[in-house]
Amino acid sequence: MRKVAVLGGGHSKFCFNSPKTSVEMLSEVAMDAIIESNLKPKDIQAINVGNVLGDFSEGQGMVQSFVANDIGCFNVPATRFEGACASGSIALRDAYMWVASGYYDIVLVGGVERATAMGTALATRTFAMFGDSRYEFPAGFTFPAAFGLLAHLYADRYGIPLERLKEQMAAVSVQSHEYGLKNPNAQIHKEITKADVLKSFMVTTPIQLQDACPFSDGAAAVILASEEVAKKLTNKPVYITGIGQTSSGKLSSQYKYLPRIRARELAAEQAYKMAGLTPKDIDVCELHDCFSIAAIIAAEGLGFFEFGKAGEAWERGETRLGGKIPINLSGGLKSKGHPIGATGVSQAYELTRQLRGQMADQGRQVEGAKHALMDTLGGDGVLVSVIFSAE
Amino acid sequence: MRKVAVLGGGHSKFCFNSPKTSVEMLSEVAMDAIIESNLKPKDIQAINVGNVLGDFSEGQGMVQSFVANDIGCFNVPATRFEGACASGSIALRDAYMWVASGYYDIVLVGGVERATAMGTALATRTFAMFGDSRYEFPAGFTFPAAFGLLAHLYADRYGIPLERLKEQMAAVSVQSHEYGLKNPNAQIHKEITKADVLKSFMVTTPIQLQDACPFSDGAAAVILASEEVAKKLTNKPVYITGIGQTSSGKLSSQYKYLPRIRARELAAEQAYKMAGLTPKDIDVCELHDCFSIAAIIAAEGLGFFEFGKAGEAWERGETRLGGKIPINLSGGLKSKGHPIGATGVSQAYELTRQLRGQMADQGRQVEGAKHALMDTLGGDGVLVSVIFSAE
Repeated sequence: MRKVAVLGGGHSKFCFNSPKTSVEMLSEVAMDAIIESNLKPKDIQAINVGNVLGDFSEGQGMVQSFVANDIGCFNVPATRFEGACASGSIALRDAYMWVASGYYDIVLVGGVERATAMGTALATRTFAMFGDSRYEFPAGFTFPAAFGLLAHLYADRYGIPLERLKEQMAAVSVQSHEYGLKNPNAQIHKEITKADVLKSFMVTTPIQLQDACPFSDGAAAVILASEEVAKKLTNKPVYITGIGQTSSGKLSSQYKYLPRIRARELAAEQAYKMAGLTPKDIDVCELHDCFSIAAIIAAEGLGFFEFGKAGEAWERGETRLGGKIPINLSGGLKSKGHPIGATGVSQAYELTRQLRGQMADQGRQVEGAKHALMDTLGGDGVLVSVIFSAE
Repeated sequence: MRKVAVLGGGHSKFCFNSPKTSVEMLSEVAMDAIIESNLKPKDIQAINVGNVLGDFSEGQGMVQSFVANDIGCFNVPATRFEGACASGSIALRDAYMWVASGYYDIVLVGGVERATAMGTALATRTFAMFGDSRYEFPAGFTFPAAFGLLAHLYADRYGIPLERLKEQMAAVSVQSHEYGLKNPNAQIHKEITKADVLKSFMVTTPIQLQDACPFSDGAAAVILASEEVAKKLTNKPVYITGIGQTSSGKLSSQYKYLPRIRARELAAEQAYKMAGLTPKDIDVCELHDCFSIAAIIAAEGLGFFEFGKAGEAWERGETRLGGKIPINLSGGLKSKGHPIGATGVSQAYELTRQLRGQMADQGRQVEGAKHALMDTLGGDGVLVSVIFSAE
């Protein structure tokens, strides 16, 4: 397997109610990525796309084929990957393997979603299809309910009074909104306080509205290439040095203590091992904060903090710029937004820019960052971990 | 890239209104494939699944993750591929690349669909999402309409009177039903005559009901492995020796003469070139006869007959067992059935059994078959070609 680099990228502003179709949104950012990579459409040998609700939200399945056609990448293999919120990350991992294997030299990876037109309530019900439809959904186990359950189990396990955990969760959301304000592509540009979180609408105890990310419309793209191609096209190549993917199946059947999502620990273990790195080596991280409790659980599963301690770390600022491990400086899913199939690709876009030192203008650059980790959780326990390293 | 073999497989009976969920159907055939391959669930390193309408037809997205869990393949990467009718074939091609690259040694490929519960009319409308939703669908360009248009253009191009083309199309359906009667997994066990076809309900001129395949419920699975693994587990390895995939994007924008689907010719060219073979070397073929005119067009695009001549070839029996190139001895989509995401995997299952000489009991074995070609068309112009070769 040969080295694989990330070239340029493209990223739409994430938003509510985009006037554009998924094909249009993705085509635009795909062209941005091609241009930024000093390539032409004809150089793209394959296109991998993460998309989840295209058929539901706008009656368009198989968006990848139409995007390929619209941007002038005629008759290349165009493939759609669906693994719920991790769809874009799975598309990325697959593209990595296609290039690493030597089969292709240049692959475009995109993700796109238009999830907001149906409204949050219907989107929540629709998205519950990515949990188990036989046992979980009929029991009311939508994703807000699932993460509410995780929060209760977590509080109980570590002896954290629920009111304290809610304060820790609030610290996650407050930080995400602070950094989201610095990200021009973020969906929600709004400072919030701990009090704002704690007085927001109760969704499913203990998760309140400001503990939950929004649904979003948006698209992102990056281009992967062999080391040889990358060295010709850029003097700042960023490499994918570790990668892991696992699927746990239905959450309700996992492990004796549910919040230790075993699939995440295994995916991260694969990525760390492949890169020859440990959590201490990671300089910046984007992780899957679909709910604030999800961020806390993820940060522990990825090895950044002791189990039961990540919430306090957020409160102490250890996850901020300059802290022990800066997390979600993009604003995360909470403030940047969560266009489902695009989320993983957006994380890759963000982290490769961090490793190239391109975030200084936005006031959220981790100085001298060498290694970055992305973590995406899809539906019932699909986990993808990717480590990027500057040369 | 190293050699990749197909080990065992599993195949449900294709049917209307399966009482089983997609997760159940696919889990059963996956276990059959694992057992037939002399493996255990823990040996499976990754699972690739083709599925198109799971969310629409039963409110279950991401079936792959639940199947993995249910059959005891815990925490492996499980990935869903969506490229309309070619979904299963894309999952297969991807698994090929994962094994060929050396990244995995044993990958399970499955396909599953439950498409019949919604009824044919709604399924046809729903499935039109895999055409272009912006321009084609609003113009009434569903897939029956698209293939009706192709038939008219084809008749005009080659100066075939429409009534003659309808007779040729009828010959395709009659043959498919004849062989489908021999396939215990086929959905429609019913002999039909040319007269039956020509008096059947007119769907969209010139396509009549008996020119169209049904929607189906069903599942299929095969296991791919490295040559090294295959030699330990079987004394009849079948190898994937050629593979190609392309996406044309919306059919209405393709090429000056629409029925020459350029993407198919390119995908087949990739597969033939990789295998070092020509159409003359192929001993048996499964191709995508979603409509009888689609079979005629495919057989020409794959290089078996001159353009404008395939219909006559069917009438002369050249596509029968013992003919120039036996096509769709499984009964094809027309009689075997078309559970969308499972179709490509079913084709692979059929052809590997042909190359192992396992179809004699069913009276449809191509004696001494060495090379087999499968062709799958997905929605607006996704094409996958795969060549299998006996050792």
